[in-house]
Amino acid sequence: MEQRNLTLLTDLYELTMMQGYFKEKDANETVIFDMFYRTNPHGNGFAICAGLEQVIEYIENLHFTDGEVEYLRSLNMFEEDFLDYLHEFHFTGDIYAIPEGTVVFPREPLVKVIAPIMQAQLVETALLNIINHQSLIATKTERIVYAAKGDGVMEFGLRRAQGPDAGIYGARAAMIAGCIGTSNVLTGKMFDVPVKGTHAHSWIMSFPDELTAFRTYAKLYPTACILLVDTYDTLNSGVPNAIKVFKEMREAKIPLTFYGIRLDSGDLAYLSKKAKKMLDEAGFSDAVISASNDLDEELINSLKMQGATINSWGVGTNLITSKDCPSFGGVYKLAAVYDKASGQFIPKIKLSENAEKITNPGNKTIQRIYDKNTGKIIADLICLVGEQYDSSNSLLLFDPIETWKKTKLAPGSYTLRELMVPVFLEGKCVYRSPKVMDIQAYCKKELDTLWDESKRLINPHTVHVDLSNELWHMKNQLLDSYHVSK
Amino acid sequence: MEQRNLTLLTDLYELTMMQGYFKEKDANETVIFDMFYRTNPHGNGFAICAGLEQVIEYIENLHFTDGEVEYLRSLNMFEEDFLDYLHEFHFTGDIYAIPEGTVVFPREPLVKVIAPIMQAQLVETALLNIINHQSLIATKTERIVYAAKGDGVMEFGLRRAQGPDAGIYGARAAMIAGCIGTSNVLTGKMFDVPVKGTHAHSWIMSFPDELTAFRTYAKLYPTACILLVDTYDTLNSGVPNAIKVFKEMREAKIPLTFYGIRLDSGDLAYLSKKAKKMLDEAGFSDAVISASNDLDEELINSLKMQGATINSWGVGTNLITSKDCPSFGGVYKLAAVYDKASGQFIPKIKLSENAEKITNPGNKTIQRIYDKNTGKIIADLICLVGEQYDSSNSLLLFDPIETWKKTKLAPGSYTLRELMVPVFLEGKCVYRSPKVMDIQAYCKKELDTLWDESKRLINPHTVHVDLSNELWHMKNQLLDSYHVSK
Repeated sequence: MEQRNLTLLTDLYELTMMQGYFKEKDANETVIFDMFYRTNPHGNGFAICAGLEQVIEYIENLHFTDGEVEYLRSLNMFEEDFLDYLHEFHFTGDIYAIPEGTVVFPREPLVKVIAPIMQAQLVETALLNIINHQSLIATKTERIVYAAKGDGVMEFGLRRAQGPDAGIYGARAAMIAGCIGTSNVLTGKMFDVPVKGTHAHSWIMSFPDELTAFRTYAKLYPTACILLVDTYDTLNSGVPNAIKVFKEMREAKIPLTFYGIRLDSGDLAYLSKKAKKMLDEAGFSDAVISASNDLDEELINSLKMQGATINSWGVGTNLITSKDCPSFGGVYKLAAVYDKASGQFIPKIKLSENAEKITNPGNKTIQRIYDKNTGKIIADLICLVGEQYDSSNSLLLFDPIETWKKTKLAPGSYTLRELMVPVFLEGKCVYRSPKVMDIQAYCKKELDTLWDESKRLINPHTVHVDLSNELWHMKNQLLDSYHVSK
Repeated sequence: MEQRNLTLLTDLYELTMMQGYFKEKDANETVIFDMFYRTNPHGNGFAICAGLEQVIEYIENLHFTDGEVEYLRSLNMFEEDFLDYLHEFHFTGDIYAIPEGTVVFPREPLVKVIAPIMQAQLVETALLNIINHQSLIATKTERIVYAAKGDGVMEFGLRRAQGPDAGIYGARAAMIAGCIGTSNVLTGKMFDVPVKGTHAHSWIMSFPDELTAFRTYAKLYPTACILLVDTYDTLNSGVPNAIKVFKEMREAKIPLTFYGIRLDSGDLAYLSKKAKKMLDEAGFSDAVISASNDLDEELINSLKMQGATINSWGVGTNLITSKDCPSFGGVYKLAAVYDKASGQFIPKIKLSENAEKITNPGNKTIQRIYDKNTGKIIADLICLVGEQYDSSNSLLLFDPIETWKKTKLAPGSYTLRELMVPVFLEGKCVYRSPKVMDIQAYCKKELDTLWDESKRLINPHTVHVDLSNELWHMKNQLLDSYHVSK
């Protein structure tokens, strides 16, 4: 697919602010922005971050063509010197990010942009758009895959996705979080992931009868023969006709490698149990029973509890739109401004009546702390770049709000991993995105670092995100200084 | 923006079915598919259809390049003769549709595709994706604009949209349904619609103090000077500083044409009333008071009820994701198959236990019936192509389920309009999409054809969608024949 120029995929205010910086400030003033989120969607215990590869493409392709500058000129709000500057614009800063497929938690930076203020400001909207969308769908998908307890989950939502990109990149995110395939052929081609699907009701209806439709399909696709059985009457017509065709295949010595039925309506618990019985009695106990029809993690969980015999799930609308929570809520906040005189970053803080909404200032990174024996995450520690940690020392963790809640980790009992990796340095991309199926494998390992209590669908155990002592003190000094000057 | 090739933006099963038709049937068999929806989203009384322009672009650009054919070959499920055929593939059929911005109701075809079965099948997924998305956002936006009772509503959701297209085309749909502008610059450029926006908290935070930030902004943008007042303390710092700047402008004889404040947090009812009082007392009673922060139609309605003095609304996440109902539910169903022998379309029907889910068979169109005096919609009548109506005769309408519910319209008391227009004929586009702002003007007139009772947000009056006598009888004969043959 051709590269689109998404440089104008931004809120107008980014451009009006850029002109303001250009006219009134040192346009090259370096700043730090953090992209983070405040609450896990769906009441989940964590999120899966995704979208970095598309952010990289966007940043690498940032440029204003003549047509774009001409359009901005036509708005009568930009001056010629600023428009000239845009002609030359490209990204020259640094970006650090947590790799795609990583388990992440609220308030920790997923992406950090260190760049001249005009560049850092411009990229806000598209960066949020991309990371918010893919992280949302990855997180929703993980819940659905979790509920399916090892059964395959297929992404079938393209027709209900919010536009082409939502289908294309939503399916990408769904693959990262563990789907075994997608119906979306373009996603299959773009990201080299498995594509899945058989036929629709219209296939059945376009033949004189259901049996002919099934027979024709089986003849064409004997090695992936999943027959849709609910067009007319699931138990009285669809399943008996499917069994007839499977018997014909068996008699003709056609290997039944991957075959079965799909249920797309009705009482899936009841129908699947009845269908299973009929298939078993005919000697087709290894037939796949797949289901679709407005599924989500709760319905899959409920069907499992009812003893439904479904072992393959096609999930559409609720996955691809993240129906119960269709936005991720990532934000992008100023964390520091470089001061040339002192050669240091001056930390910045955004205040709020709500303690949860106060930002973490400064140039930060994240240390993930694992239990050495189990490999499970103990906590994440947001700290300042340059702080040194050594797992052969003890480590004191404390809650950043209720600071009397403390945990002391014994020397050697834990391991550390710095989560953020360099992605751009001085405008050059220094990171190579893994292939989507490799990200999926990594994501699976990531999920193994969580206790089951943090993965359950309802009221999961919260993994702590703490601040380092140094960061906590910096933040509190800034808060104090604000109240004094008021 | 460059044209993307979205030919593979389809579910795999469309392609496996296409190969099936190619191998096993007359690939040129002409069929009719209807795209329609079953329930208005959000409990609304109607929907606004949108997306046709993008469907046209998609259809015109349909073609399989070498790269796409090569990818399909790599899947090892398609045969060479079929892959050869794909090289030559283009759309040769007819498409009829209801123009964008029209008020529409459940069960009526929004788009009708009459084409060789392979073509009609391929386009299903993308057509649904595009129309579902834009109709959803247009319908959601109309509710928000309705709640704002004449105040301007601006679309601010790009950062929370489900990917770039959801931002770009969601903003397009929002403009169709009555937004006065969007923050999305790319949408502004692509569709020549107004772009809006001022500055973010980061603008304020990047200056030593709020007053300097405001002054600088006012100096740069005196003719569109909306100041964000909630970075530090809305009533004790933000509004007083904004007033100070407006006074300085007044003293410097800078015309205060479009100026005011934006509230982005806190109790919007309380803060807007207090801010209004402060602005009035300083002689700035015509200042705009705009608000943002997770708004939707219910919150705007509630703020209006509380006497909030806000007169401009920036709506983001809830509009651009259609948060309370993030999918539209449009479907695409086979309605007829052309029979060469008889030279006629044989109607097809999809059965269901649920009467609402049984499809309407045959080659259909829609007559919209207006009251001649008021210009309001009386009902829509789904009928068969070729039926003749004359408003100088009386017209008997009846409920298609409860057929004893009848209404007889007197001769000359009503007018008729056929809703569907030809868009493609024999593969050639014969329709020119209006500009988005012209569609907006048309949509506004469309909304005038509804009684207020059908526009209210909760429990709106239902507009009837009836079947013509001829269609009703055809449908019932088909239903009867199925039960006999079972």
